[in-house]
Amino acid sequence: MKLVEVGTVAFDAIETPFGKTDKIIGGAATYIGLAASFFIEKSGLISVIGEDFPSEYIDSLNKKGIDTAGLEVIPGGKSFFWSGKYHDNMNSRDTLITELNVLEHFDPKVPEVYQGCEFLMLGNLSPQVQGKVLDQLTTRPKLVALDTMNFWMDIAMEDLKAVIKRIDLLIINDEEARQLSGEYSLNQAAKKIMELGPKNLIIKKGEHGALVYHEDGLFSAPAVVLDTVKDPTGAGDTFAGGIMGYLASKGDVNFSTLKQAVLAGSALASFTCESFGTDRLFEITREDIDVRISEIKELIKI
Amino acid sequence: MKLVEVGTVAFDAIETPFGKTDKIIGGAATYIGLAASFFIEKSGLISVIGEDFPSEYIDSLNKKGIDTAGLEVIPGGKSFFWSGKYHDNMNSRDTLITELNVLEHFDPKVPEVYQGCEFLMLGNLSPQVQGKVLDQLTTRPKLVALDTMNFWMDIAMEDLKAVIKRIDLLIINDEEARQLSGEYSLNQAAKKIMELGPKNLIIKKGEHGALVYHEDGLFSAPAVVLDTVKDPTGAGDTFAGGIMGYLASKGDVNFSTLKQAVLAGSALASFTCESFGTDRLFEITREDIDVRISEIKELIKI
Repeated sequence: MKLVEVGTVAFDAIETPFGKTDKIIGGAATYIGLAASFFIEKSGLISVIGEDFPSEYIDSLNKKGIDTAGLEVIPGGKSFFWSGKYHDNMNSRDTLITELNVLEHFDPKVPEVYQGCEFLMLGNLSPQVQGKVLDQLTTRPKLVALDTMNFWMDIAMEDLKAVIKRIDLLIINDEEARQLSGEYSLNQAAKKIMELGPKNLIIKKGEHGALVYHEDGLFSAPAVVLDTVKDPTGAGDTFAGGIMGYLASKGDVNFSTLKQAVLAGSALASFTCESFGTDRLFEITREDIDVRISEIKELIKI
Repeated sequence: MKLVEVGTVAFDAIETPFGKTDKIIGGAATYIGLAASFFIEKSGLISVIGEDFPSEYIDSLNKKGIDTAGLEVIPGGKSFFWSGKYHDNMNSRDTLITELNVLEHFDPKVPEVYQGCEFLMLGNLSPQVQGKVLDQLTTRPKLVALDTMNFWMDIAMEDLKAVIKRIDLLIINDEEARQLSGEYSLNQAAKKIMELGPKNLIIKKGEHGALVYHEDGLFSAPAVVLDTVKDPTGAGDTFAGGIMGYLASKGDVNFSTLKQAVLAGSALASFTCESFGTDRLFEITREDIDVRISEIKELIKI
């Protein structure tokens, strides 16, 4: 298994200025796995769901090459549910409902077939759960990446720093980088964060692109300039999944490959924003992605 | 005269998390002229000051090749004064004091020696004053650029649109582009704004760089990632001045030249942020700027 992704598989109910959904499929691991599927034939997913989760959706993930041996189904359990409403500017949102359900006691188990994975993406979950996955690996992956959020910095900063110490690539947004480091300047924040352990750091800036700090240099990646953003939910996870899928397909993590991976992640994230939920990720082809990557490259051609 | 800049020459008193100044020299035309001076030998400045303005500072502008035949001194008058305090994040600020003084009845006069100028930068002023300068030109410059702010959109939108109709390049920030167009998507905003008249539009995004809409394409310019921002006052004017100075030195406005000009403007703006007021613009050399432009290019090298 080249890539294993860990994170939520969940229900979302989303309201944006462009519309409103009932419960639809979401979750970090879902978006990560789908985004990565454009670059690698197979990945392994570690998560937990309840019996309420539609098996047809699991089938559709499997068809995309996402192995769900690591997806635990809790008998009689209910899947994690999040509901949020985006403000008019789409850059901020209010959480309306968070029902942890089966996530509350999630005890991740790494299937034997996932052992030896080369790339591991620890999606946003409690640092303890992220650490438990690392504990179970018999060989260390070539690259371990981690996503997190300010919530964990508020309630579990020490646990978070402990797991960050064990990873190679941290992917967080600018606000989170500032909170984690206590530094306003992103350069200063990056220095402090990389002192915590990771050799590489990607600071996401939403519609403004991302800063990619690699041990060999700094890359300022532009974002696609979209005409319409319908629903940004999952864009960050899609970005991370695209990066990890691309890296896993290349098998290396040098600066040049990481840059290309970030462009791929940006392209994928832009598709996710174009519709609600995971819809666009089931519609697009590898060719659509390549066209968009070319468009991004054109944006920064001097 | 290759370039003429119109705007305030004024006193600022600034407070940021890094310090506080007494009355120091500021003003849009000051920053524009200084920034442009690195690329062209001479520019002409149109503004108004009171008798309280230090003549040594005028001398220092003249030494930089900034002609002040268009700088009217009002006998017994007091110069425009602005005082502001930046919030901890440096991205927003509160205006503490605005004393219009001689600016209140500013009636710009274009000196005969400025006629025939090839490039004209209309810095942030009332749209009526900006229009009055255009009215006096006997030949139309090759490129007229304009900066403005939300204040004029609030109180004089029709006057503003009337003057925007007469220009070639509008340079505003993302918030202003959204207000001017009524569109949230910057792409949509750009389309609507360019329908108002200007063939080219630069949307400034502060620490996130700028989007350059040219009739031949879109360029996403990165900003320098600074370790320390001491005082962003004048950064936008420096950016515009760098762009206009660079364009005036090249004498054309094609897409490729505009891209290079924006990189030059970004480099210059980054220096302005490194100290209070115009200090850094008197310290740096053309070589410092070229080094920084190379650093910016490196940031987006794939």
